[in-house]
Amino acid sequence: MKGLSKLLCGIDLGGTKINTGIANNKGEIISNIIIDTKAEEGQDAVIDRMIKSVYTVLERAGLKIEDLAGIGIGVPGLIDSWEGLVIEAANLPGWNNVPIVDIFSKEFDINIRLENDANAAAIGEYLFGSGKGIENFIYLTVSTGIGGGAIIDGKLYSGSNSNASEIGHSVIDFNGPKCNCGNYGCFETFASGTALARFAQNRMDAGEATLISELAGNGKVKAEHVFEAGEKGDKVALELIDKEAFYIGIGLVNILAFYNPERIAIGGGVSSQWDILKDRVNKVIEERALKPNAKVCGVVKATLGKNVGLLGAAGLVMEHK
Amino acid sequence: MKGLSKLLCGIDLGGTKINTGIANNKGEIISNIIIDTKAEEGQDAVIDRMIKSVYTVLERAGLKIEDLAGIGIGVPGLIDSWEGLVIEAANLPGWNNVPIVDIFSKEFDINIRLENDANAAAIGEYLFGSGKGIENFIYLTVSTGIGGGAIIDGKLYSGSNSNASEIGHSVIDFNGPKCNCGNYGCFETFASGTALARFAQNRMDAGEATLISELAGNGKVKAEHVFEAGEKGDKVALELIDKEAFYIGIGLVNILAFYNPERIAIGGGVSSQWDILKDRVNKVIEERALKPNAKVCGVVKATLGKNVGLLGAAGLVMEHK
Repeated sequence: MKGLSKLLCGIDLGGTKINTGIANNKGEIISNIIIDTKAEEGQDAVIDRMIKSVYTVLERAGLKIEDLAGIGIGVPGLIDSWEGLVIEAANLPGWNNVPIVDIFSKEFDINIRLENDANAAAIGEYLFGSGKGIENFIYLTVSTGIGGGAIIDGKLYSGSNSNASEIGHSVIDFNGPKCNCGNYGCFETFASGTALARFAQNRMDAGEATLISELAGNGKVKAEHVFEAGEKGDKVALELIDKEAFYIGIGLVNILAFYNPERIAIGGGVSSQWDILKDRVNKVIEERALKPNAKVCGVVKATLGKNVGLLGAAGLVMEHK
Repeated sequence: MKGLSKLLCGIDLGGTKINTGIANNKGEIISNIIIDTKAEEGQDAVIDRMIKSVYTVLERAGLKIEDLAGIGIGVPGLIDSWEGLVIEAANLPGWNNVPIVDIFSKEFDINIRLENDANAAAIGEYLFGSGKGIENFIYLTVSTGIGGGAIIDGKLYSGSNSNASEIGHSVIDFNGPKCNCGNYGCFETFASGTALARFAQNRMDAGEATLISELAGNGKVKAEHVFEAGEKGDKVALELIDKEAFYIGIGLVNILAFYNPERIAIGGGVSSQWDILKDRVNKVIEERALKPNAKVCGVVKATLGKNVGLLGAAGLVMEHK
């Protein structure tokens, strides 16, 4: 496996923060720095800041660029991993076919790799977290949106143009609500944190009494408010949580039918509520999934937490290809 | 690639017929025989007949068992390809964890492989038909049921226990009708030939005048009747065909989201109507699929026709693993 003796650099580029760090091949972070993205300053400024962050973490760890196997970059958007392009990214306005791998390659004479954040996270969890040693492994992130990544026969499967496992945009009800992507009834329109907050708002708008209103106060309802109200026994919140678990369950039923994986790990914001959701979700799988596919697969909570983006990006340059 | 210089034997085991044959590595059938399955006689008798059919095709072609790279078997049911078991098969009553690979291995001292029929068909189309040279390729069969098979990075992906790409049992409307599998709103409950006939029957039961009634006569309505009536301009039939294309389109949208393939080939009975469905299906993809995933992928008609099962089974022993 190439680069096993060298260290791994990962950059988790987000819409508000950039997390750059160096890890060893056990997934232990040796040095990292979190800086503001300042996306409004435009792509050149952001890329400049990313490059500087690499030098900063190297310096802090007393390392040279030669100590690295490469630099992996995870981006929350549409990318072309073969061409090394960021095609577009919702939280990075103005980014349009940015040849980020070329730009980095001019600065650093090492292996540079690019993936979308969910695919990178799948690699991270596979190499260092909840998917260790599991050759057919799916990572599903349920947050404001829903994304996924598939490890197939021990390798990231990114598809013909890096857009495989866009699980959030698979249809679970073709009569469902309109999705940001233009389609209707995508998994993400039912099961994302955004969808949960929307369903809660609908109940409040209908005049139902619920603790969620109090918790949200004058601000926007968030998924967290629903779970908090649910913990306190609020009836509306508990109904919404049941629905949320049902929708996640249906998405998992589809993952089982398509990928027949050995393990699925749930990450993203909603995963922090996994203890509440787990039994409800497993009941849906038991009732609805193909039996042999369900039997062979465990659904677990992802383990890398807030560093999944960094470790996933770093893991991109540990792969044996 | 192992066995390239040797010939391939394939057995397409169906509920009513068994098609056994020998092919070369170009997918040309040298010799084959189609016999009745006589499933009612039980598994031992059926397996005996399968074994005899291998000897028959060898004899007819003037070949010996040593001339074969192996024997591949395709079965329309739930199988375990690692253990070589037929777990169950709807059209083969009484088959329950049948160790068919072991039984064949005792008779023939060559490589024996087992797959479900849709996975085998995917290999067949990839090696010899509509998926030639396409490393990320999906085969979808739309017939009385719906099945699928995925070629990923040039290899059949069969999943953790040979049940990957059970695309017919992915949910496209969680409020939909009950499926044979126990779930609700599976792709197959909307888009299979059986579903199309059911929708037609519903329209007739509601008292609508349609040519479909005449074509069906006193018999059961079949998908073919709908297409035939549609060709003659029957309004109800044309509406049903539009719906059928819509449902197939939604299934393809999900295949694009999960697998991001370069090509999808449609096989099975409904594929004979592909000329009528094609434009309608592509319109659904254009309107609903993720743009980058749709852009990179062509949907075509499978090309191996009635021999896809035989050639797929034969192709199993041509794989380089």
